[in-house]
Amino acid sequence: MSKLFTFEKPLGMRDTLPFLYNVKKRVRQAMAQELEQWGYEFIETPTLEYYETVGTASAIADHQLFKLLDQQGHTLVLRPDMTAPIARLAASRLYQHGNPLRLAYHANVFRAQQREGGRPAEFEQIGVECIGDGTVTADAEVIRLMIAALENVGLERFAVAVGHIGYVNALFVDVLGNEERANVLRRFLYEKNYVGYRHHVKSLPLSSIDQQRLLKLLELRGGTEALARARELVQTEEGKKAVEELEELWHALKLFGVTETIKIDLPLVSHMSYYTGILFEVYADGVGFPLGNGGRYDELLEKFSCKAPATGFGIRLDRLIEALPEAAADNEIECIVFSQERFAEAIQLAEEQRKKGKKVVLQHIAGIGDIDAYSKRYNITYLLGRAGKEN
Amino acid sequence: MSKLFTFEKPLGMRDTLPFLYNVKKRVRQAMAQELEQWGYEFIETPTLEYYETVGTASAIADHQLFKLLDQQGHTLVLRPDMTAPIARLAASRLYQHGNPLRLAYHANVFRAQQREGGRPAEFEQIGVECIGDGTVTADAEVIRLMIAALENVGLERFAVAVGHIGYVNALFVDVLGNEERANVLRRFLYEKNYVGYRHHVKSLPLSSIDQQRLLKLLELRGGTEALARARELVQTEEGKKAVEELEELWHALKLFGVTETIKIDLPLVSHMSYYTGILFEVYADGVGFPLGNGGRYDELLEKFSCKAPATGFGIRLDRLIEALPEAAADNEIECIVFSQERFAEAIQLAEEQRKKGKKVVLQHIAGIGDIDAYSKRYNITYLLGRAGKEN
Repeated sequence: MSKLFTFEKPLGMRDTLPFLYNVKKRVRQAMAQELEQWGYEFIETPTLEYYETVGTASAIADHQLFKLLDQQGHTLVLRPDMTAPIARLAASRLYQHGNPLRLAYHANVFRAQQREGGRPAEFEQIGVECIGDGTVTADAEVIRLMIAALENVGLERFAVAVGHIGYVNALFVDVLGNEERANVLRRFLYEKNYVGYRHHVKSLPLSSIDQQRLLKLLELRGGTEALARARELVQTEEGKKAVEELEELWHALKLFGVTETIKIDLPLVSHMSYYTGILFEVYADGVGFPLGNGGRYDELLEKFSCKAPATGFGIRLDRLIEALPEAAADNEIECIVFSQERFAEAIQLAEEQRKKGKKVVLQHIAGIGDIDAYSKRYNITYLLGRAGKEN
Repeated sequence: MSKLFTFEKPLGMRDTLPFLYNVKKRVRQAMAQELEQWGYEFIETPTLEYYETVGTASAIADHQLFKLLDQQGHTLVLRPDMTAPIARLAASRLYQHGNPLRLAYHANVFRAQQREGGRPAEFEQIGVECIGDGTVTADAEVIRLMIAALENVGLERFAVAVGHIGYVNALFVDVLGNEERANVLRRFLYEKNYVGYRHHVKSLPLSSIDQQRLLKLLELRGGTEALARARELVQTEEGKKAVEELEELWHALKLFGVTETIKIDLPLVSHMSYYTGILFEVYADGVGFPLGNGGRYDELLEKFSCKAPATGFGIRLDRLIEALPEAAADNEIECIVFSQERFAEAIQLAEEQRKKGKKVVLQHIAGIGDIDAYSKRYNITYLLGRAGKEN
């Protein structure tokens, strides 16, 4: 175990300095404003949850959880996502009469990193959960809302890839007949390893027609014409139902006026087991990773003894900020430097400036170490020294 | 180890529902606005820190820390306060040229609870640290700013008790001559156990004059007259210097126009070892616990290899909210319920209402479980059913 430097932070942990703090605040507020206008209500849940309940229900792999023991011997986790805690809260206190519940959050979530990671182990997510509404309209709403919130932040060129896990499962069951084989292929899709997928399909003991069907899945991308091709590829009830849901979704998104931003993407698998229907990821032009994702998860609430359909999305604030045009610094702070004799005068001046909405530091000259450096740091608007020494 | 209920949260962990979320948001924003206007800049630090560095430097007792091990075998802590992390950040990156640094934060902090606790194990603090300014003016500024921020939130009747740990230490050294005995008495004061203090003083093998001096400490409370009495009680350099600093502070707070809110309170000991000079606690009328506290801590930065004086305060958001008059609910949400045929019309209506700044839920009728209960929950402004069924 290496000795720590005094200043060291745990792996993947970051400080947020004033400039980035202000960018985050602005982006968070712009997103939150849109979510609230659509009637979503913000809630908070604790940073720590029981592993046994929320930890195991979460979508995040076990080795990525930060775990600790409480004084009663229970294992606690630092929440790795917000969907499972909100499911707990909805199931226990908020979901009633089978009526839709619209909740929103912005919260830090935690993912333990390997030494080589370099990725953040704590980052902020902002998102919504629409619980209790099983209609495709609810899926369309959360996608539309995600687009509206991103536009409200000022994100310009981005696309939402939309798939349906029911379609992928139906095709795999139909062709492979075997859940184990299906899992191997799903993992290739989940990892977006299409070369590996093709290679593996060709190695399977299948007729060349069946191999072709599996390979054609990768081409089911684009607009409504991709849906027409999808319909031909799968004949089972489940497969047809998935395509119909996507058609209905497309229709709803057309009414919402956002199909320009949507790309049908049937090979999309966002998670190995979490989602149960329509799912989606959002990409900004020129950024290689998704800014966020979402989808339908109709089986999660049951883990909290409450049967209810649900859909939602979560956006990673750090990735969204990376995708935005660079913000201008807008945090001008004025400074009044004074000597003891003119303290009262300085107080009054500062009060007047603050009433005008300005940010004003009030600084006794005796507290300054290096006035030249200080005047580079702040805009010193008044220097109230002894009589005759004023600027 | 007892079996957990599905819904259970770890001891001391709480959910924040929409109404309280909105109250917290409003209070946080009002405080933050004031802190920013005084030129304090907000930063964030990670939830997890190394025990070896920030954990041991913090003011919080070891048994109250949430600890865990990282993959390299280092002990991590959930930050128990924000002062130590900010000291780390200032020392490593922000404090330069011996110039004052004004930082602000709002953040959740963590305190492990015993089973019997009932107190929150995670709560939000909002506060400032003024680093690098050793003048009494800086102490006056943070007290003045704390008062301004509380007033901006709408807190009406409250008082700030101000003491000086240097005074208490000087008196104890002078009378007792022995650090061990001083520690026992300091702990009585820290626990505000004045009966125990009196009892213990009377049991000490001291002259009755010396016993009287120790007992008189408890009476050094009030306005400037308490300072005059304090000056008589201690003759040492350190004691006189502490009284002079308090007199200078009083003068500065008079210029700031807030001495009405200040109570000199020389027996005040807010922490066993953290503070090095002026310290204070803030109380609201009719609330039995401090809403927050602060003071000068000139030795903390040295633990991060950087010598610098510092002062600051932190307010507990939950306690502040308890002290505020009950807020009115102001989160009216409208709802448009529609059937499939009128989806387009509903979208347009919702858009128009949102543009007016209203919060509008758009709800497909097929997603509702119980329309009567739903209409109690929301203000349903439009019910767009099939032709002829409209409200």
